[in-house]
Amino acid sequence: MKIQLPKKALVTGGAGFLGTHLCKRLLEDGYEVTCLDNLYTGSSRNVEAIIRSTTTTQNYNYHPRFTFVQHDITQPYRGQFDEIYNLACPASPPHYQKNPLETLWTSIDGLRNVLNLARDTGAKVLHTSTSEVYGDPLVHPQVESYWGNVNTIGIRSCYDEGKRVAETMAAEYRRCHGVDVRMVRIFNTYGPYMHPQDGRVITNFVMQALTNENITIYGDGSQTRSFQYCDDLIDAIRLYMELPRETVDGFFTGKACRPAVPVINTGNPGEFTMLELAEKVIELVNASNVNLNLPTSTSRLVYEPLPGDDPKKRKPDITLAKELLGWEPKVSLAEGLVKTIAYFRQFASASAGKMV
Amino acid sequence: MKIQLPKKALVTGGAGFLGTHLCKRLLEDGYEVTCLDNLYTGSSRNVEAIIRSTTTTQNYNYHPRFTFVQHDITQPYRGQFDEIYNLACPASPPHYQKNPLETLWTSIDGLRNVLNLARDTGAKVLHTSTSEVYGDPLVHPQVESYWGNVNTIGIRSCYDEGKRVAETMAAEYRRCHGVDVRMVRIFNTYGPYMHPQDGRVITNFVMQALTNENITIYGDGSQTRSFQYCDDLIDAIRLYMELPRETVDGFFTGKACRPAVPVINTGNPGEFTMLELAEKVIELVNASNVNLNLPTSTSRLVYEPLPGDDPKKRKPDITLAKELLGWEPKVSLAEGLVKTIAYFRQFASASAGKMV
Repeated sequence: MKIQLPKKALVTGGAGFLGTHLCKRLLEDGYEVTCLDNLYTGSSRNVEAIIRSTTTTQNYNYHPRFTFVQHDITQPYRGQFDEIYNLACPASPPHYQKNPLETLWTSIDGLRNVLNLARDTGAKVLHTSTSEVYGDPLVHPQVESYWGNVNTIGIRSCYDEGKRVAETMAAEYRRCHGVDVRMVRIFNTYGPYMHPQDGRVITNFVMQALTNENITIYGDGSQTRSFQYCDDLIDAIRLYMELPRETVDGFFTGKACRPAVPVINTGNPGEFTMLELAEKVIELVNASNVNLNLPTSTSRLVYEPLPGDDPKKRKPDITLAKELLGWEPKVSLAEGLVKTIAYFRQFASASAGKMV
Repeated sequence: MKIQLPKKALVTGGAGFLGTHLCKRLLEDGYEVTCLDNLYTGSSRNVEAIIRSTTTTQNYNYHPRFTFVQHDITQPYRGQFDEIYNLACPASPPHYQKNPLETLWTSIDGLRNVLNLARDTGAKVLHTSTSEVYGDPLVHPQVESYWGNVNTIGIRSCYDEGKRVAETMAAEYRRCHGVDVRMVRIFNTYGPYMHPQDGRVITNFVMQALTNENITIYGDGSQTRSFQYCDDLIDAIRLYMELPRETVDGFFTGKACRPAVPVINTGNPGEFTMLELAEKVIELVNASNVNLNLPTSTSRLVYEPLPGDDPKKRKPDITLAKELLGWEPKVSLAEGLVKTIAYFRQFASASAGKMV
């Protein structure tokens, strides 16, 4: 009898928000997982959470199928893996704008190292791209064949253009070297394990409501976003990677209405204005406060100017993901927010109204 | 009395089409010039032309102020220079699509090496970007504040997206490291020293007319381009680099209608359809043939399908260059074509109708 060895996966950015969810899922699915992270926005708290939630032992530093390596993917990493999930890159503006050149190198050199490893070892690659490649879109909702509207030299460019050229690299490694690389363009996604100072709207609103600070609305709050709960995204990624290469190739080859290489949007098409989101967060935080016998949040809405190049509207067209994966998001905004609020409560000292 | 040492310039891609013109101009202006080229599309013929046209000696391998180094700028190059002109990158689709990943690395690693050198030594940088950052533009004519319409994963992306992210890098080295980098977005430029198999429309038409081959029109020939004669571009580049940093900074800082970092279009706004160009080339080749007692060109127009993502229309708005440099193109299309035809005749064996 032949022993069935577990499949090996490498997850770059594995201690970040989405990396944590993905590592957990891969462990649940029986994979042997190597998690790389430079811990710039990822955290050892998340690494511990991965181990804690997937073992029944009391030793939270050890899981028989999990290895954490503190490594910056801008430097080459070698090893034999069946699948590589490239998630490494700070994704929130305050994080990626702090070291714009490091952000660029993570997108560029990080993916190049991943693709070189895949070319040399035959690993299958899932590269996480972003709805930011559409920039401030002129087409609604955004379909994969839309080319985007992005400023090359603005303050968001280090992320947006780095992610755009990463797609180019992936497409060329596929064409030139036959690397089996599949891309998802991820629209706003939220949930537990986000960085408490992530700086994007869901974490801002939830933390502000939990700590009784005023809720900051940029502009007049009429700009819309779609919010995907993390579990829905992880479902899509896993379904995508389970497909045989022929299925993926066949789906994308020679169809004028589809991109020339495998790239699909994943996101929740439900659209909410920032004002609607703020009101929902306050409502759900208050409902949760009542359950915990805590006073009602005293947060009020305050308005600040829009930062540079902030997209006014964004909403995914997920037809391709539906057709290819039979997938669509299942978790409602209210349901996802309840879980997110429960997670973030640990970072808020409600009585003092301060972050901890 | 203090001896005035010549200023030192480094020109990457110095043995290419524009590099040759720039090296010649810098030598004429008294510079000490180091010319780097990997000779992928540049040529030693051009290096010889630089030396030959700027010395009166009989030794065409030596010029007291000129050094040629065969070097690929994707590898670091060190030295102390006052000015660095970053021109390295194949620019015609058949050349840049032959090794798409090399094209990407030239744009990315090439400029990164240049900017690191400038950061470490205080050199001033002129980076040549391209009208291709506008892609298939939705705004006419193209102003610098237009963000472009570029496919991230098409067959032109290795050039277009590489050049876009290079602009991002330049902008961030300016913001993060204070590097004095100035960018030009070059629209179609032509003239002597182009590669005879360049593959773009002017060289194609001129070589086809000179060798009595049929002239290939892609699509119906109604797509327009603007054509800038090389000398006009070199004028703009030199004027731009002669400006004090304060002048450049003042021009671009805090003006909502101007880009946040120094980037200007250079091109000739005169617009011609491919059909008009083909007719003009045949007319001028025939006029030149008459002067040389050669028979009339027998070339006829033939039509082929448009290649992928070919922009339908492109025309520069050169208001910023006019305002900043007091520059505008001086050489008419007919005048430039006459010089270009004269240059390309050496590569065409008119009697045999073959390339040599």
